[in-house]
Amino acid sequence: MPVSAKLDNLRVVLVSARNPLNIGAAARALSNFGFTHLRLVNPYEVAFREARSAVGAAALLQTAREYHTLREAVADCTLVVGATAVGHRELRQPLRRLEYGARLICRRLASGPVALLFGSEKFGLSNQDLSHCHWLMRIPTCAEHESMNLGQAVAVCLYELVRSSEAETAKPEPTRRAATAELERITLLLLKALQQSSYVIPRTSSSTEEKTRRLIRRLNLSARDAEIWLGMLRQILWRLGAG
Amino acid sequence: MPVSAKLDNLRVVLVSARNPLNIGAAARALSNFGFTHLRLVNPYEVAFREARSAVGAAALLQTAREYHTLREAVADCTLVVGATAVGHRELRQPLRRLEYGARLICRRLASGPVALLFGSEKFGLSNQDLSHCHWLMRIPTCAEHESMNLGQAVAVCLYELVRSSEAETAKPEPTRRAATAELERITLLLLKALQQSSYVIPRTSSSTEEKTRRLIRRLNLSARDAEIWLGMLRQILWRLGAG
Repeated sequence: MPVSAKLDNLRVVLVSARNPLNIGAAARALSNFGFTHLRLVNPYEVAFREARSAVGAAALLQTAREYHTLREAVADCTLVVGATAVGHRELRQPLRRLEYGARLICRRLASGPVALLFGSEKFGLSNQDLSHCHWLMRIPTCAEHESMNLGQAVAVCLYELVRSSEAETAKPEPTRRAATAELERITLLLLKALQQSSYVIPRTSSSTEEKTRRLIRRLNLSARDAEIWLGMLRQILWRLGAG
Repeated sequence: MPVSAKLDNLRVVLVSARNPLNIGAAARALSNFGFTHLRLVNPYEVAFREARSAVGAAALLQTAREYHTLREAVADCTLVVGATAVGHRELRQPLRRLEYGARLICRRLASGPVALLFGSEKFGLSNQDLSHCHWLMRIPTCAEHESMNLGQAVAVCLYELVRSSEAETAKPEPTRRAATAELERITLLLLKALQQSSYVIPRTSSSTEEKTRRLIRRLNLSARDAEIWLGMLRQILWRLGAG
């Protein structure tokens, strides 16, 4: 699926959000992860206005759409998923963990709009709201501290939607490692400094040399760091010689 | 690794946090995902006090430890990782994406304390702070909206540390599906209602029956929902008969 379809087809729907900071935080999370469609159902007017006019408010908040009912907010969506903590309610719909639910959502985003619903800070989604959902999704939080802050919950869900399982095993950019010749130059300079500092005892000098050689190899130096070490050791040696 | 070692060995370190709401949000994220050790380096005193005394502040905030220098805050850790947006800085350390970095951190948490550093809301971690890190980690945000809110960044990183790749493919609890006999009962009741409503034209009645049978099979009904449908159809038929 082209990335743009995935990002463009998601509608994040905040139902009855009450706190301008949370509305702003949700908008920021959308921007952070490249999503663009934020919808607000029946937001507390003052909160929405404050969030919109806040300094540094995501530009995205300006294009957020407001709806009077959840029914209208999800009318164009082919899949509606409610984010919920389990709490004490008996849920009537399938509940999926975020890791698995996000895979299903990504698949559906390829072919059409999907709504991801978040409820109010205080009460979450009502049973009425939940009845609009095809299924529910929960963030794997601890049973004792289950309920997340709204802005953080949005961020975590969106992150899971964009995270890449390939990146899990991808190694970082390979750094050019130091060549053996450079390592040996460092070894010899360090040995010289140790000799001049009377660290090396003649009786064990050959074993000290081997130990030092292995010690330097274990550093797994990059080419750039090898140069820095050479410079440092040369300077120390110069000072030792001068002393 | 026992889960408790993983959760118990992480130290989340906030360096120079300035906003009580962010300190509170970070603490809440730790609680949500089961971590317990929060450390603050040189926090803005007023912010720390306010965060601690806020209504509903995580109990965790009461046990958060305060340090004057980052050096002291990470002294007991065997791995120090800095969370950072790339920004315009030239980074001197390996930078790993969260998905990959979290795997490395989890492995190290099995054997000893690991520090995960977050910088101030405005400036992030300074070069001085970064020099204490073994390597750096970035959340895969968009280049144009790279910088995350502090509380949200903490939540996303901690989520990645506890997320389970097994859960990705785990199916939800299997629901008992309706048996074929029940599906056929629904099919026949629906057909009867359609006949009584003159939906069925005698000329095409056998093709309508087949279409209806396939339609009901496609619903993929659970045993519980099949019962609800049977009840509804019986009631409709009763009314149709009465009419």
